[in-house]
Amino acid sequence: MILPILFIILSFQSCSSYALVQDFCVADTSSAGPGGFNCKKPADVTVADFVFSGLATPANYTKLVKASFTPAFVDQLPGLNGLGVSIARFDLEVGGFFPMHSHPQATEVFVVTSGAVNAGFISSANVVYSQNLKAGDVFVVPPGLLHYVINAGQTPVLGYVTFSSQKPGIQLMDSALFGNGLPTDVLAKATFLDADQIKKLKGVFGGTN
Amino acid sequence: MILPILFIILSFQSCSSYALVQDFCVADTSSAGPGGFNCKKPADVTVADFVFSGLATPANYTKLVKASFTPAFVDQLPGLNGLGVSIARFDLEVGGFFPMHSHPQATEVFVVTSGAVNAGFISSANVVYSQNLKAGDVFVVPPGLLHYVINAGQTPVLGYVTFSSQKPGIQLMDSALFGNGLPTDVLAKATFLDADQIKKLKGVFGGTN
Amino acid sequence: MILPILFIILSFQSCSSYALVQDFCVADTSSAGPGGFNCKKPADVTVADFVFSGLATPANYTKLVKASFTPAFVDQLPGLNGLGVSIARFDLEVGGFFPMHSHPQATEVFVVTSGAVNAGFISSANVVYSQNLKAGDVFVVPPGLLHYVINAGQTPVLGYVTFSSQKPGIQLMDSALFGNGLPTDVLAKATFLDADQIKKLKGVFGGTN
Amino acid sequence: MILPILFIILSFQSCSSYALVQDFCVADTSSAGPGGFNCKKPADVTVADFVFSGLATPANYTKLVKASFTPAFVDQLPGLNGLGVSIARFDLEVGGFFPMHSHPQATEVFVVTSGAVNAGFISSANVVYSQNLKAGDVFVVPPGLLHYVINAGQTPVLGYVTFSSQKPGIQLMDSALFGNGLPTDVLAKATFLDADQIKKLKGVFGGTN
Amino acid sequence: MILPILFIILSFQSCSSYALVQDFCVADTSSAGPGGFNCKKPADVTVADFVFSGLATPANYTKLVKASFTPAFVDQLPGLNGLGVSIARFDLEVGGFFPMHSHPQATEVFVVTSGAVNAGFISSANVVYSQNLKAGDVFVVPPGLLHYVINAGQTPVLGYVTFSSQKPGIQLMDSALFGNGLPTDVLAKATFLDADQIKKLKGVFGGTN
Amino acid sequence: MILPILFIILSFQSCSSYALVQDFCVADTSSAGPGGFNCKKPADVTVADFVFSGLATPANYTKLVKASFTPAFVDQLPGLNGLGVSIARFDLEVGGFFPMHSHPQATEVFVVTSGAVNAGFISSANVVYSQNLKAGDVFVVPPGLLHYVINAGQTPVLGYVTFSSQKPGIQLMDSALFGNGLPTDVLAKATFLDADQIKKLKGVFGGTN
Repeated sequence: MILPILFIILSFQSCSSYALVQDFCVADTSSAGPGGFNCKKPADVTVADFVFSGLATPANYTKLVKASFTPAFVDQLPGLNGLGVSIARFDLEVGGFFPMHSHPQATEVFVVTSGAVNAGFISSANVVYSQNLKAGDVFVVPPGLLHYVINAGQTPVLGYVTFSSQKPGIQLMDSALFGNGLPTDVLAKATFLDADQIKKLKGVFGGTN
Repeated sequence: MILPILFIILSFQSCSSYALVQDFCVADTSSAGPGGFNCKKPADVTVADFVFSGLATPANYTKLVKASFTPAFVDQLPGLNGLGVSIARFDLEVGGFFPMHSHPQATEVFVVTSGAVNAGFISSANVVYSQNLKAGDVFVVPPGLLHYVINAGQTPVLGYVTFSSQKPGIQLMDSALFGNGLPTDVLAKATFLDADQIKKLKGVFGGTN
Repeated sequence: MILPILFIILSFQSCSSYALVQDFCVADTSSAGPGGFNCKKPADVTVADFVFSGLATPANYTKLVKASFTPAFVDQLPGLNGLGVSIARFDLEVGGFFPMHSHPQATEVFVVTSGAVNAGFISSANVVYSQNLKAGDVFVVPPGLLHYVINAGQTPVLGYVTFSSQKPGIQLMDSALFGNGLPTDVLAKATFLDADQIKKLKGVFGGTN
Repeated sequence: MILPILFIILSFQSCSSYALVQDFCVADTSSAGPGGFNCKKPADVTVADFVFSGLATPANYTKLVKASFTPAFVDQLPGLNGLGVSIARFDLEVGGFFPMHSHPQATEVFVVTSGAVNAGFISSANVVYSQNLKAGDVFVVPPGLLHYVINAGQTPVLGYVTFSSQKPGIQLMDSALFGNGLPTDVLAKATFLDADQIKKLKGVFGGTN
Repeated sequence: MILPILFIILSFQSCSSYALVQDFCVADTSSAGPGGFNCKKPADVTVADFVFSGLATPANYTKLVKASFTPAFVDQLPGLNGLGVSIARFDLEVGGFFPMHSHPQATEVFVVTSGAVNAGFISSANVVYSQNLKAGDVFVVPPGLLHYVINAGQTPVLGYVTFSSQKPGIQLMDSALFGNGLPTDVLAKATFLDADQIKKLKGVFGGTN
Repeated sequence: MILPILFIILSFQSCSSYALVQDFCVADTSSAGPGGFNCKKPADVTVADFVFSGLATPANYTKLVKASFTPAFVDQLPGLNGLGVSIARFDLEVGGFFPMHSHPQATEVFVVTSGAVNAGFISSANVVYSQNLKAGDVFVVPPGLLHYVINAGQTPVLGYVTFSSQKPGIQLMDSALFGNGLPTDVLAKATFLDADQIKKLKGVFGGTN
């Protein structure tokens, strides 16, 4: 009397090696397509693919910005593959900040859980949407728009941020402009910045040419 | 005079081995990504990939529920891969039924072609949408919601059901709860069911612990 | 002791008038956007929006093709709105057929339940995928490709067809070419057909100019 | 010298009243389509549409489950409309739990920030993926699958949960089964539960019939 | 002082071999899934994957239609993979034309840059939308609908066309009907064309049977 | 003999006022949802909705950058609504350029038709992909990434650019930073730029505070 109802379940599944593709596609990071990584063989999937034990403490702080970002993206959490969402922890020391950046293609939503910040994004219509936020406040940044978050208080900031992507990109404006080999004359023309300013920041961010 | 117009066609196609990806991606079930199986080499595609000859008779009946479900999903019909739809045949003997279940991520639409059923689904707002249906009636079940179908007549039921997925999952409530190793105390807490009731149904559905 | 658990449910819902948008969006056919019709007020939704009682008998036959097509699309079944799938019944008398046509943007999958047909589609690579099908056979037509279905037996044909769209379009080749005011000279150039052939078929399909 | 570069910006925008639709579509909750609410007039959008100050403290606890759920969904945060993600705070008292439920169509990812839980989900293949989680642990629940979270420690639990939907539905199994008018005989058949068990739980969850 | 800010960037990236999947997925044309080709290893990606130098001159003209079509699709431009758009150049000699065809699943938008054309598409409702276009005019063809473009002037035509697909298919009506082995009797039934007309055009387009 | 085949067409259409939604949804710019504008009544749609006669000559040049951008987006071409693609003309005088900017959420592909440019984009991994391009060259910019185009020759540049969006946003870096009321101290912190540099560029782009 135990087995019969399983026949219905089985009739929903095939004998192929990807019988479980229907619920999830745990990442096999050795190959990928436009929608994400290809799937691990179902037989190799375990609960560990759906768990990441890494947000208890902040990752290393970056001294220049007194900030730490600790992701739980598909690389840390292979069960997220193809599911369109991810989470991370962020920490700002007193005086810390996340400089102007954007996440191409991903919405960002964050909650501040301790401390206070000033955050803002700028729309395509060139309007600034900025606000002082305290613990318990949530803020939305639409996809692809420049934004920043600055510790606006006298205590460290802790928060959690979620993205509408299993692996959001980040384009840090300063690194993009001053942290590679974009020639100074091209950059001066494309940004209207003075050559002296550019050279100074290339010194900070490691740019050449 | 025969060949020239083909030049236009050819200019739309590449010399790559996936020149046909543009119309379809027939499943090669040996590897998959989040959007479905990877594609067979076009040279290996034949009309057989688009045909399945399996809905003339019901699959085996599951005695406990006097029901049979015969799918034409991507595993049976590799040409469906990536195309977002599938079909199946269902049969209910007198007294047969499909117990409470859901299809995570897929819409269901079915037509009764013989017999009569009582069917219902329950929304997130906890509202029951149920109806007695006779031959020729069509019923919609939105994605992911619990629903059931019961033979409500004195004759066998035959029908056809379609899903907005090439390979819909099914979560049979009883099998999910009572057909695996979820410990009885966890289950009692998570479901409010009495331990005796749980143990009795574990006996029926093969659960342990 | 009855009410408390509902608080959780309520906390998932808003006091807005669209609290139920989360599960479904039943069509209010008086306005629409690119993804489908706008939604009925939830208070106006009933189980009748998810039921259509129209596939028990064929719609009127079209004499010229001895064929009947009876849809359960979003216009008949407003609960389908936004859910990406629909179903229909088709009937072919002896000698009946569905002439060459395509469904722009929608996959088609059909099952023959009585009789026998010859069906085929043509790919962008100009390859014909055709097959004789009997009761119980399922056939897939990828989106947007020209295809036809012809009664290949000595008995009427009955079947059910599903689409990956709540309201698939249909482009009947003959009606598109010969059933409107496309001028004969333009048509002759664009199709390579002889003017006499065009004029003859304009007579059949109601074309002018 | 101030204005000219704005000409480029303006050429990207129209004189229509929805010039800003390109970056976001802030919800006007008075009407909706399948993809979300219709958009507020851009002139009415302010930074307040992108901020919600409600996660500092838990919402009311539901006594039966000693649990609280505080959402920041599109109804609380209209700037989320159409952006495919949302966030919430959850709290469990000692002994508290979220009973068996599913989110039709939405992925869930949560982080525990204080306390310890046991969480699990069940796949369509009837496999249980469960784990004990402590502060800093992240857990993924694929869309539409039954899952539960139980306070497994001796202290209250706090955490944050994100969904791949601006307004995820929730189907609480007990409320769906026992909190409405589904007749006991239908329910007994569809769930294999004993009538006595059903009647007892209808008493708890407010069901009738 | 150079390196610290890079820590933030690095924390957004994994040590997997697909760290760059987040921005793009350059096609490796040796394997594919439903959403496009699988991705090249990031280490193999260069700017050449995002550049195609082939639209300076027309591809070979097809004599029968005095037309040339020169694509920059994913096969020519592997960086387009998964990005949902492509471009091409088209040329029509005096008297040249693109005969009746459709692009299954892709929108077409074109601009005429020299010369004059008559273009038209036909909707599912059998309505013709046609127009005479001159240099600087843009025309939209919704996905999957039959359309044509005819040089309507006394000079060659040059234009650029874009598609909402990285690799749009094309179904040339005459080639689909008369350029393969579809039997004349099937074709006569499915198209209402006279057998003589069919045989004549099979002679032009290379059809058999 | 003229009318019968139309019955099939009619059975595919409803008597609702949106019978044509199946092929296209021409924008009524007075209301919108997340997926685009709501649809014009089909009876009001004409071929003019699918034609825009505005790319024959450049729009006004912006003196500061000696550049002109002339869009054919959904505001100019209402038939594009919901169809996921658009086109534009761009012109650069000698010495002209498009300064550093991004298109949140949209892929860009452009072809140079006269002149020569230097173009480049920067990835999330901080890699520059730049190239000198001449007439006939095509260049791809993945969604949301910073990029620039500079006239690199001694003659004016003309080209056509297409986007994977009916109405792409544009975020011009200088206008976003220096063309609104973002306070200088916030900006200095968020960008690492010197206050003097910021004030100088606020003078050029119209910023305050």
